[in-house]
Order: sequence, then structure tokens, then C-alpha cells
Amino acid sequence: MKILNIAIFGYGTVGKSTVDILEKNNSNNNINIKYIAVRNIHDNSKIHDNSKISGIFTDNHDDIWNDPSINVIIELIGGMKIAKDIIYKAIETNRHIITANKAVLAEFGNEIFALAKKNNVTVGFEASVAGGIPIIQTLQNHFSLGKINKIEGILNGTCNYMLSNLENDTSLSYSDVLKNAQDKGFAESNPSADVDGWDSAAKIAILSSLCFGIDIPKITDFEVEGISNITSEKIEEAQKQNKKIRLIGSAEKIENNNSRIKISVRPEIIDQKNLLYSVNGSDNMIIIHHEYLGEISLKGAGAGGYATAMSVISDIIRL
Amino acid sequence: MKILNIAIFGYGTVGKSTVDILEKNNSNNNINIKYIAVRNIHDNSKIHDNSKISGIFTDNHDDIWNDPSINVIIELIGGMKIAKDIIYKAIETNRHIITANKAVLAEFGNEIFALAKKNNVTVGFEASVAGGIPIIQTLQNHFSLGKINKIEGILNGTCNYMLSNLENDTSLSYSDVLKNAQDKGFAESNPSADVDGWDSAAKIAILSSLCFGIDIPKITDFEVEGISNITSEKIEEAQKQNKKIRLIGSAEKIENNNSRIKISVRPEIIDQKNLLYSVNGSDNMIIIHHEYLGEISLKGAGAGGYATAMSVISDIIRL
Repeated sequence: MKILNIAIFGYGTVGKSTVDILEKNNSNNNINIKYIAVRNIHDNSKIHDNSKISGIFTDNHDDIWNDPSINVIIELIGGMKIAKDIIYKAIETNRHIITANKAVLAEFGNEIFALAKKNNVTVGFEASVAGGIPIIQTLQNHFSLGKINKIEGILNGTCNYMLSNLENDTSLSYSDVLKNAQDKGFAESNPSADVDGWDSAAKIAILSSLCFGIDIPKITDFEVEGISNITSEKIEEAQKQNKKIRLIGSAEKIENNNSRIKISVRPEIIDQKNLLYSVNGSDNMIIIHHEYLGEISLKGAGAGGYATAMSVISDIIRL
Repeated sequence: MKILNIAIFGYGTVGKSTVDILEKNNSNNNINIKYIAVRNIHDNSKIHDNSKISGIFTDNHDDIWNDPSINVIIELIGGMKIAKDIIYKAIETNRHIITANKAVLAEFGNEIFALAKKNNVTVGFEASVAGGIPIIQTLQNHFSLGKINKIEGILNGTCNYMLSNLENDTSLSYSDVLKNAQDKGFAESNPSADVDGWDSAAKIAILSSLCFGIDIPKITDFEVEGISNITSEKIEEAQKQNKKIRLIGSAEKIENNNSRIKISVRPEIIDQKNLLYSVNGSDNMIIIHHEYLGEISLKGAGAGGYATAMSVISDIIRL
């Protein structure tokens, strides 16, 4: 049994849930969480109330980088610059890296994967797309033969939660449902990544690369439109025709031009015949159109600490 | 790269599709189909028109068992007695075995898995449940931590096709849609395994074992009811209330009694809020209720040569 000595960077919702699940379920004792890096170790609210792990918090990253026993780094701090540095440093020091960071992967993924291959370490990124849905490993394993013609889905739980909210109560305004999503912890105080479509764009870019065997496309190179122009009037109009508005990311081969992939993120008006019509609240769904398998879909929690932590852990277990 | 020398028993729809996909996609050249065993080698309709493989057909099983280079057996003949003998013989002679045979696994699986463990060979059975949906590997990999509380689904494409047909045209009778399913090749000339629920029962028994870490339960020990009592009147009655009838296999932990699992297969009247409402034609869907992940669902082709062959092949690739 391989011994995995782990350092986790970041102890927010997903970090806490990851530690919690591992503590309760690590019966093999082969997974040791040796460090949890937080911004400020004197910030007591960050420290787990479980005394078993209180000694492993650090705010000095060198504690981790200088410990040769650490062979797995888990990056869960989000954001761009520091997260990127952690991912690169992990690979350069020959540690496996597991990350939920779709933004860093969408921008630097091609270089990251090449560097990881060169250094013979694994990049686990199941948690970067669609929270608890095992879409990455399904694409890597089950679809390794045959062509995927199209992949599409609802990839952002925050937007879907807001759209569902507007549907359920059309007296609410866009800013009401945004505030509601922020109060519930779904949306960031700066909600642009979610509501302007950039989070969905990073995810469909990562999926495109896996599905079509291409480099990760730049999200600034394809059409990205968010939900900030959706009004309750537009929702009501759709509802009158038994339709819904959903923010859909899509990547599709152009017919008769196999080398071209059309990628977009935009709000679409869909009817009941569309499977995505059934996706409410913060759920995600991904539909794959495959040469041999036809249409196959996966639906589940698009976010949430425990769901996303399960994806982090499935990457740990696969190391 | 591991060299896999394969013998396929059975050359029906799934066998043909498996050979076809492997021929078109085996760019690594590590997968060699060395034999295809058919009942009668003089039956020309069985022989592939591709001259590349015409030399590898045999109706003498000893050709295969006596060839020490063969390290993978694929059993796709279906039925019980001969299929069971092939599976046992493969394991006893230290070959990996891949099978789509849910009936043999439901009845003899516990012994088969124990024997395979002892002989250090793999039993691949992705194709035994839900055709092209990667449910087995998803359960084995992604759900290896945390508890599953319930698994349920539409597991028989034939029954779902028949029920969908009755819905679309209520002037049809049960025997009309059965004949239609038989004409389309969905139902066997003896349709009992499908329409009486035994096929779904074998599948939910296999899933129960994976989800709850129990021995495969005997299908005669739980409630199994098929669709042969469903009339167009019952369908119409459900439709008047915007409901549908679906044959649902379900396995669930009894609350406050974690060691007891309640398993059943029966036609249920479901409304639009139930995700299974969206499953039409020969599709399958499986819904898992998980401690950390909440509700997660997979939907896709429940049968069909190419879809099922992809599951066979994903097992080959994982060897």
C-alpha cells in the first residue's frame, strides 16, 4: 500500500470537508494529512475543533516545501496567483498535485500538464468541474475509445440557483436573487466569475480538451455570455411557453470540419424535451454525445463542501 | 504496455460490436483478438465479412483453453449453463474474465468473485448492468468512501421501451408492444426475463452488493414484479394525472437498521418530479443517494451492441 503524506493548502468549505471525510474513513491508514496551510495560524476560526489535527496547521509554506516526506499537495485556496505558484512548485518539487482550481487550469493547464508529465507526477482535477459529479474520470476511462461529437451542460451551480429562484418567485429581481445566493454562500462577494459566465467557460474549456484531445482553449477566444441580462420578465415569458432559461456551456464538432470545435457559454431558452430542463437549484448536469454510446448524462451536486471533497478524495485514492 | 490476447465467446450483437470497435481503435496494438468462439463455424452468417478476422473463428473451445498465450476471456454468449462453465474455466485457468452476464453473476457471483480473488484474476462486469452507462466503475472508484443510502433505477431497456410505446399510442395492447419489441430485437422470443422483472432483479442484486458491501442477494429472496399486468387502461389513468408507469429496481437501507437492505423490482406510478420520469424508450437511468454527494444520477443507453461493447472494452482497458 502506497503511503500518501499530504499537505492541504486552504481550509475553507472544501478543505474542511476533505479533512473531515478522510478522518472518518481512512481505515487503511495510508493517507496522512501532515500539514494544513492557512493564511494566518492565529486566526482561531480556521482551526479545526478536533484536537487530533490542531497541531498540523501552518502559515509558513516552507514547512511544507522543506519536508521531503510530503508527496501529495492539495491546492484548495482558489484564486489565481498564489494558487498557480503552489501548483507549479508542487510539480517542480516532484509532488503529485490535486486541485479544484478551474481558473488556473483553464489559463495555464497546457503548461501544467506538460510539466507534470515531464516530472512524472499526477495532476488530479476531478473537483475542478461539476463538484461531486465524476465527469473527469468518466471521460478519461470510459470514453477512451470512439469519438465524442458534443459535450454540453449546466456547469455553474450559482447561476442555476439564481435562475431557479427567479422562476420560483417572479416578484424577485436579479439583484434580489444575487443577494440571496451571496447570503447562502453560493456566490462570492465579487460574483463576476459566476454570473458573467467565466467559471462555466473555464470548465467547458477543460472538458473540451479531454473530449476532443485538443489543448485547453483560451476562454477569451470563444463566446461567453452570463446571466446578468436575465430579467424576471424574460423568465416569465419563457414560463408562459413552458420553457426555462438555463446557462449552458457547450463544445461541439463542426459538421464536415472535424478539426474545428465550436465552444460557447450562454443563456438558452429550453423546453421540457431538453434533459437540462430538469436541472434545478445548485445542481449541475453534463450531457455527452458519443459515437458509440449515443447520449449519456450525469447529474448531481455542482458545488458544496462534501460533494467537491469527494472528488478531491477520489483523486487521492487513484494516485 | 501489457499484451492482452483475447478469446471472445459469442458473436451476437455485442460480440460483433466489440470486435468492430477494437479493430477501428486499437492503435496501441496491445489488444489481440485471437479467437472468436461460435456455436457452428459452418454457419456463415456468423462470420465477419472482414477477411482480417475470418481465420480466428472456432467452434472447438479446446482451441482456446489449450492456448497458453490467451490471458483474457470475454463471455458474451448469455444464458446460464455454458456461460457459467466458461466463466469458471477462465478463472480456474488463471485468465481474466469479462462478462455481460448478469444472470450468472446474480446467481453465482459471490463464488465467482471469491475464486477470482484466490486466483488473482480480474472479473470485469461493467457490461452486465445498464449497457453503456459506466455505473460499475463509478461505484467502484468514486463512491469508495462514504455511505450509499439508496440506489434505484430503470434497469431494463426492453420494459421501458414497451411502457413508452404504450404511452405514445394507447390504442396498442400489451401484446402489441411486446411483439414490436421482439421485432426490433429488444425482447427475446421468450421474454420472461425482461417482462417479469428477473433481468432488473439480477442487476439490482449486483448493484446492491457493490453499494452496500454485502454478498450478492438471491433474487428469489426479494419482491420482484414485472410489467405483464400493465394495461393501456392503467397507462391512460396515470397519464390523466400527468404521471407515468416505470419498472423500478430499488435497494435501500432500512432506517434505524443499517444492516438491513430492502430490495425490490416493481412497476411504480411516478410524477414529473421524479427524475426517472424523463427516461423514455430503451434508455436506463440509475440514481444513487450518497451520504456526502447527495443525489447523483447517470442516464444513457441501457442496451444496444455498441453501447454495451464500450463497457466490455472499458473493462479490457482497465486490466
